Amino acid sequence: MTSDSGSAPVDLYPTLDLEQLASLGSGASFWRTEELPGVPALVLTDGPHGVRFQSGATDHLGLAASDPATCFPPASGLAQSWDPGLARRIGAALAAEARAAGVGVLLGPGINLKRDPRAGRNFEYFSEDPHLTGVMAAQLVAGLQAGGVGASVKHFAANNSEHDRMRASSDVDPRPLRELYLRAFERVVRDSRPWTVMTAYNKINGVYASENRWLLTDLLRDEWGFDGAVISDWGAVADRVASVRAGLDLQMPGPADLDDADVVRAARRGDLDRAHVRRAANAVARLTTRARDGRHASQGRGGQPVEVDLDAHHELAREAAEASIVLLANDGDLLPLSPGTGVAVIGAFAREPRIQGGGSSHVSPTRVDVPLTEIRRIGGDDRVTYAAGFGGDDDDAGRLLAEAVAVASEAEAAVLMLGLTDDQESEGVDRQHIELPGDQLRLLEAVAAVQDRIVVILSSGSVLDLTPVVPHATAILSGALLGQGGGRALARVLYGQATPSGRLAETIPLRIEDAPSWDNFPAEDSHVRYGEGIFVGYRGYDHRRREVRFPFGHGLSYTRFDYRSLTVVARDGGQRVEEWTARVKVHNTGRVRGREIVQIYSSLPASVRRRAPRELVGFGHIDLDPGQIGVLEVVVERRDLAYWDEPAGRWLVEGGEYVFAAAASSRAIRIEVTVVVDGDPRPVRIDLESTISEAMADPDARLVLDEVFRPFAANAGGASGGASAPVGASIEDLVGSIPVGRMLSGFLGLDREAVARVAEQLSRIPR
Amino acid sequence: MTSDSGSAPVDLYPTLDLEQLASLGSGASFWRTEELPGVPALVLTDGPHGVRFQSGATDHLGLAASDPATCFPPASGLAQSWDPGLARRIGAALAAEARAAGVGVLLGPGINLKRDPRAGRNFEYFSEDPHLTGVMAAQLVAGLQAGGVGASVKHFAANNSEHDRMRASSDVDPRPLRELYLRAFERVVRDSRPWTVMTAYNKINGVYASENRWLLTDLLRDEWGFDGAVISDWGAVADRVASVRAGLDLQMPGPADLDDADVVRAARRGDLDRAHVRRAANAVARLTTRARDGRHASQGRGGQPVEVDLDAHHELAREAAEASIVLLANDGDLLPLSPGTGVAVIGAFAREPRIQGGGSSHVSPTRVDVPLTEIRRIGGDDRVTYAAGFGGDDDDAGRLLAEAVAVASEAEAAVLMLGLTDDQESEGVDRQHIELPGDQLRLLEAVAAVQDRIVVILSSGSVLDLTPVVPHATAILSGALLGQGGGRALARVLYGQATPSGRLAETIPLRIEDAPSWDNFPAEDSHVRYGEGIFVGYRGYDHRRREVRFPFGHGLSYTRFDYRSLTVVARDGGQRVEEWTARVKVHNTGRVRGREIVQIYSSLPASVRRRAPRELVGFGHIDLDPGQIGVLEVVVERRDLAYWDEPAGRWLVEGGEYVFAAAASSRAIRIEVTVVVDGDPRPVRIDLESTISEAMADPDARLVLDEVFRPFAANAGGASGGASAPVGASIEDLVGSIPVGRMLSGFLGLDREAVARVAEQLSRIPR
Repeated sequence: MTSDSGSAPVDLYPTLDLEQLASLGSGASFWRTEELPGVPALVLTDGPHGVRFQSGATDHLGLAASDPATCFPPASGLAQSWDPGLARRIGAALAAEARAAGVGVLLGPGINLKRDPRAGRNFEYFSEDPHLTGVMAAQLVAGLQAGGVGASVKHFAANNSEHDRMRASSDVDPRPLRELYLRAFERVVRDSRPWTVMTAYNKINGVYASENRWLLTDLLRDEWGFDGAVISDWGAVADRVASVRAGLDLQMPGPADLDDADVVRAARRGDLDRAHVRRAANAVARLTTRARDGRHASQGRGGQPVEVDLDAHHELAREAAEASIVLLANDGDLLPLSPGTGVAVIGAFAREPRIQGGGSSHVSPTRVDVPLTEIRRIGGDDRVTYAAGFGGDDDDAGRLLAEAVAVASEAEAAVLMLGLTDDQESEGVDRQHIELPGDQLRLLEAVAAVQDRIVVILSSGSVLDLTPVVPHATAILSGALLGQGGGRALARVLYGQATPSGRLAETIPLRIEDAPSWDNFPAEDSHVRYGEGIFVGYRGYDHRRREVRFPFGHGLSYTRFDYRSLTVVARDGGQRVEEWTARVKVHNTGRVRGREIVQIYSSLPASVRRRAPRELVGFGHIDLDPGQIGVLEVVVERRDLAYWDEPAGRWLVEGGEYVFAAAASSRAIRIEVTVVVDGDPRPVRIDLESTISEAMADPDARLVLDEVFRPFAANAGGASGGASAPVGASIEDLVGSIPVGRMLSGFLGLDREAVARVAEQLSRIPR
Repeated sequence: MTSDSGSAPVDLYPTLDLEQLASLGSGASFWRTEELPGVPALVLTDGPHGVRFQSGATDHLGLAASDPATCFPPASGLAQSWDPGLARRIGAALAAEARAAGVGVLLGPGINLKRDPRAGRNFEYFSEDPHLTGVMAAQLVAGLQAGGVGASVKHFAANNSEHDRMRASSDVDPRPLRELYLRAFERVVRDSRPWTVMTAYNKINGVYASENRWLLTDLLRDEWGFDGAVISDWGAVADRVASVRAGLDLQMPGPADLDDADVVRAARRGDLDRAHVRRAANAVARLTTRARDGRHASQGRGGQPVEVDLDAHHELAREAAEASIVLLANDGDLLPLSPGTGVAVIGAFAREPRIQGGGSSHVSPTRVDVPLTEIRRIGGDDRVTYAAGFGGDDDDAGRLLAEAVAVASEAEAAVLMLGLTDDQESEGVDRQHIELPGDQLRLLEAVAAVQDRIVVILSSGSVLDLTPVVPHATAILSGALLGQGGGRALARVLYGQATPSGRLAETIPLRIEDAPSWDNFPAEDSHVRYGEGIFVGYRGYDHRRREVRFPFGHGLSYTRFDYRSLTVVARDGGQRVEEWTARVKVHNTGRVRGREIVQIYSSLPASVRRRAPRELVGFGHIDLDPGQIGVLEVVVERRDLAYWDEPAGRWLVEGGEYVFAAAASSRAIRIEVTVVVDGDPRPVRIDLESTISEAMADPDARLVLDEVFRPFAANAGGASGGASAPVGASIEDLVGSIPVGRMLSGFLGLDREAVARVAEQLSRIPR
């Protein structure tokens, strides 16, 4: 592997003494690393959907102010675009703004899985699916780092709720850990080589992420080849010495002189291998030089001051917002509205839109498109009325409701902007439920009593219970959290200047009790058992055959797309097929230009492993004019078909007849094709712990055991002479489950030496 | 504690040498223990719903024949009686038959929880509820042991599926392990002091039950006070030395000379403490003398040959069967039928009833009541026709169907006996689904086309999918597995000679995918994750607000019962209330005598713990004539309100307003009463690992911390001077979750000595 930053390997030892090396392992201040001879300082700053640079007071909780920066859609919004290229361009824009602020590492993206709709930071994360998350995040990181600014992929790992967040252990079994919670991290690390990875606050299977040697060293570095710096979330280090030993390089924030001193003391005593201290210091030094080099490279080595085109970034924010809006429902094609229609816009979010969530990711936007203004701009100032509808204190409620009903009753259609309020969606606190605020639901009901053409626009970074909304809404738009350009984007979609093309990145269930994680959320006694295993998100709803409100991947359009054909072509990779190209012919049969996001799901109906009925393995989009037919190619990689085989300790592709489905959502399968896949050999070791069934299924082992069984087989007729026909399970069932060793010594009475001989013979079978 | 067998404590050492002691730790033969000077041999034999004594060939798999014995309803049937007194009488009858056969220990009852409807041995177990299981099993054990025969409570523990049963680990978190899977064991051990406990084949959290020191010694002996012998299931010992060290006393079957020699060798080498070998030998010796003494005591010390009244036992089997039948549905009061009605009895089970399951529990009945014969006896030979309907090979199918349709079309009502076949329900194999066989469903449909008065009688030891049955059946009886008296019992219930009073001991879900364990059944890679935690059975369906086909505790009657009142009286136990008496006034408002089974459920709506919406804490029955009003008293024990508090390492009752509900099923709540319960003090230790919220909630700890915080509080205004209003979560949310130690050193920068001083101050707070 070669480094993409061009930095030469660093070894600061023995240039710096132990104290200096240790001091590099913690920040100099809240946002800055230590500066030492030969090692420049580095500024890190919160992100990830904008640069949260604090030139004044500093904090990591979203409390103190930050300098203005473009507020792009948070991950929960951007994910709905299903557009990795867009993510890459946003990454590039973020890099430019970061550089302008002198920031070397932007703390993001956050790529944890949305395990439960109530998790407090869902708005900062992409999806309930690791493939979608990984592909989007990899491109964001690539764009950012190509611009000379390092990413910090976070929160590593299994950070999926806020409750008791600095102490709780995420207790996850190997398969879900690998296949769900680590899978996006693995993709981003392997494909985009982030400069840093940020450890989570939580424990994983009882060990703090920051002290988890398996996670930070065995897995991240040794298995995935990570060559960057491992940095702590702010305040995530409980024991610096243990953390350094496990693989942490940089403790943040600083100063942390006492911890540095602990490291020195432990190294002097021999409690901590000095190699660990050097590794950490070198990683930090390399990071800072990487940032300096990357800055130069991206600017043509001139070092000229960075020019940021904030207008262009605002346009990009608008484009991203537009691509991220999902048309959930559109009965009788109410949308798009015609300009000039008498529209009552209702809901305080029309004037003060919710564009992002609270906490460390909260940025100060450079400007904000106000939905009401933008709607009036297109729809006509005189044709669009407004009522706040909710907000204010309890005394205002009646008046606000009456005003809203009044404007709604006089309009030809009502556009209700509903959603979660700032305090309902923030870092640090999980939601208790997924309901909209009661005053908003009362508002909707009251408006519905006087107006039957209702468009509901939802603003929230996480899933809402739409059971009380659906009966009253003619059309529903998911406005997610769209960043500073969302107001214009929504207006354009409302009036058909843009055709919605976004897709849900998370299932909307009928009720929160249907969530696969329902039995185990959040932590109790500082433990969260990930009891649903691999059945997270749509994998769980599908596995339980649960109806949902809107499925993962769902989104309507103002036009229609027919799927004409699906062909899958394998690309031979030498010994085995490494990827397949799915060619999907799509026809825009409607009347406007639009984008179709095509999803490829795989299933293996005859699998001998526990599996979700369907898993996303690829996606792409195609823009088509009315009447146009186009062919979209989606590459499916072999690694996305693999499951984690814990006994084998590796990813394996099971052989068999896979079904590849081209689909408009996880539950709107358009065309299916069967693809025969050669499986990876499964290295099965037959030993005394194997069952008789397993051993007899292995031709070589069978030869060994047949020899052992021969004398007993001769007597079998006599021994079972008095037996009646077996009742119920077959002898194969009963005997087949006995471990070989138990059978030999316990049931057949072989002596210790004979058993040892069999074990030895089995161990000689080549694998 | 005093022994209930009257045996004096034994210490065979140094009477016997090490070899002899070790030899006592394994059987002399398949069903017999070693005989040594001063230690008589003991015969153990399979049960538990009948004595499976093999005078010929021996096996533990239900293959070889056994001598005739009364076949009482297996646990799955008997549990539907909800009648602990009946269980006790059956225990006494089993004891008599066991003694007559020279059997000292009957291998039962099986008291594992029915975690999943597909588990292969569900028919041998009682219920999905640990209270019902524990109360029933405790009485069966009491009855058996009062008769001088030892019980072997099995399979200890967490044996809840058959797949890979000799190797798979049941991976269970502390709360479900204690509150669900061990709870019935704890009750039976504490209340009925079984002579033996049998270890399960499986591992628990990675350690074989037979080698699990925590399970066999720390928990069973030290915590619960078990004073009997721990014996292995037949073939469940993988490593005898490890097992003896963990607390296993008797390895079965024997001979196991090589294992005995291993024990001797390990003890000589010092790898195994000789005290363990003595403990095991003493436990076996005590068991054998207990059996001898018990036999004498129960017979008046005369030693006369045991007389068994097999006629009386058959009558008891009939009574038990009758009490165990559940009337699931009875549209338009089709049942009871009038004698003389033209009835077509259809289904091969009418002639060859399924009375028990397959495997080690399979007994040879002394006689079998044939349903068709008994129905004809009451209904009239000439009024009852018969067709097999199913069975035979494929060639017969069309003819059998035609015959069934013919008799059904000519009758006034059809009684269809459907259910699982022998090979679908057996030890050693789990079911893949819960469906009735396809030929039976086709039969039902065909009969329904010509006959609209259909009674379906279901025979199975485990749950069936009734979705295809309900639309065609006018009435449904759960015939469970009823033992040898089931034929008469069913006939009596059909014609109203008996009024059905049984209740389901297991929820019948709408579909198997609704089962709480659906995501995690059975083992994969030799692990079963009990991911649904405490939400097993109705606890899970209730927690997820799932509709079910028939709820836990459901059962109809031929009469009606009104619940007139519920009063709950606390009995003061000194420092705290140890039990409550719920008095339920019940009125038989129907026209026949009947039995009502009243269930008491508790809930704690304001609980701060994760909890099932409702838990069974008591039950009882009352027999009432038409028009009669009676008062039933049900005692609710404090221990049944407790939850397992893992951090505290003990059972705790949370204080608060409990709701006690008198109910006719888990979903037919009749009357609720609020009961204020004083909670147990929760020993909370505040230390550096406690969160700021936890510490500040403790008055003493708050004093300590206030002192520490004072200097910083003065500066707080300045530090947050540049801060905007917090967005989203409150400062309390964000700061409250930080562990005290992390706050002091990481955020406030206290030095190590200062932090240590705080820790020391906190540790001095008395608890």
